[in-house]
Amino acid sequence: MDQTEARGWLGTALAEARAGLGEGGIPIGAALYGADGSLLGRGHNRRVQDGDPSMHAETAAFRAAGRQRSYRGTTMVTTLSPCWYCSGLVRQFGISRVVIGEAVTFHGGHDWLAEHGVEIVLLDDPECVDLMRTFIKHHPDLWNEDIGE
Amino acid sequence: MDQTEARGWLGTALAEARAGLGEGGIPIGAALYGADGSLLGRGHNRRVQDGDPSMHAETAAFRAAGRQRSYRGTTMVTTLSPCWYCSGLVRQFGISRVVIGEAVTFHGGHDWLAEHGVEIVLLDDPECVDLMRTFIKHHPDLWNEDIGE
Repeated sequence: MDQTEARGWLGTALAEARAGLGEGGIPIGAALYGADGSLLGRGHNRRVQDGDPSMHAETAAFRAAGRQRSYRGTTMVTTLSPCWYCSGLVRQFGISRVVIGEAVTFHGGHDWLAEHGVEIVLLDDPECVDLMRTFIKHHPDLWNEDIGE
Repeated sequence: MDQTEARGWLGTALAEARAGLGEGGIPIGAALYGADGSLLGRGHNRRVQDGDPSMHAETAAFRAAGRQRSYRGTTMVTTLSPCWYCSGLVRQFGISRVVIGEAVTFHGGHDWLAEHGVEIVLLDDPECVDLMRTFIKHHPDLWNEDIGE
C-alpha cells in the first residue's frame, strides 16, 4: 500500500495510544479501516481504565466497528505488533492487511499472519517505539500482565 | 484431567450456551476455571445480544474473570472448538488447558494449541453438537458472520 496513506492511518492509532496513556493506561492504539478507506472503528487498550483484560487496542477497534458481514479488504492499523490474541482475531475474521507501528519492543504474531496471506506493512515508527519503551521501563509489571508473562 | 470433573465444568459452559440461545443469540458458552478449581468467570457469545462481535464465549468468560496476574494452571472450558481468535487468547495469556465440548460442527485452533503445549481435553458431547447443528441449520448467515466466512 501507499506509505503516505499507511502513515496517515497510523496517526489515528497513535492518537488512540496517546489518549490511553493520558488516562493512565497502556499506550497501544488501533484503528480498523474499510476497503474503501473509511474509518470503521478505533480504540485503545483498556486493561487499566476498565479493568478489562479482553480490550487490547485491536479488539477495542474491532468492537467499535460493530458487526460487519465481511472484513475482506479491511486494514487493522496498530501502534504495536499484534499479540497472538489479536493476530488470531485478524486471521479468524479475514482482515486483509495489518499496518504496524513497530515490532521492536514486542514481536507478536505478524510473521504467522504473513504466512497465512495477510499483507503486513511494518513502519518502524520512532514515536511508537518511544511510547512503549518509556511505558515498559516505568510499568514492567503492568506490561507483563498485559501479555501474560 | 479427571473426566467427571471435565464434564462437570462443561455443564457450566453448556448452561451459558443455553442462556445465549434463550436470548436469541449464538449458543456457545464458556467458563474459566482457576488452578484450584474455582470458577473465575463465565460467559457466552454476545454478537446478537450486544451487537458486539468481539464477545465470543471464551473472550466473554475471560473478561468476566477480570484482571489476573497469571493464567498458569487455569482451564478454559468451551462448548465448541475455539476459533483462531479465542485460540490466540489462550496462547497469549498462557492458559494451561482447554476443555472442549465438541469439534464436529467447527474445527478451530485446538491442534495448534496442543502443538504449543496447551493440554486439550475433547469431550465429544452430544448436546453441544446438537445445539450447534440445529443453530447452524436455522441461522447459517449468522454463524458465518461469527466466524468471518
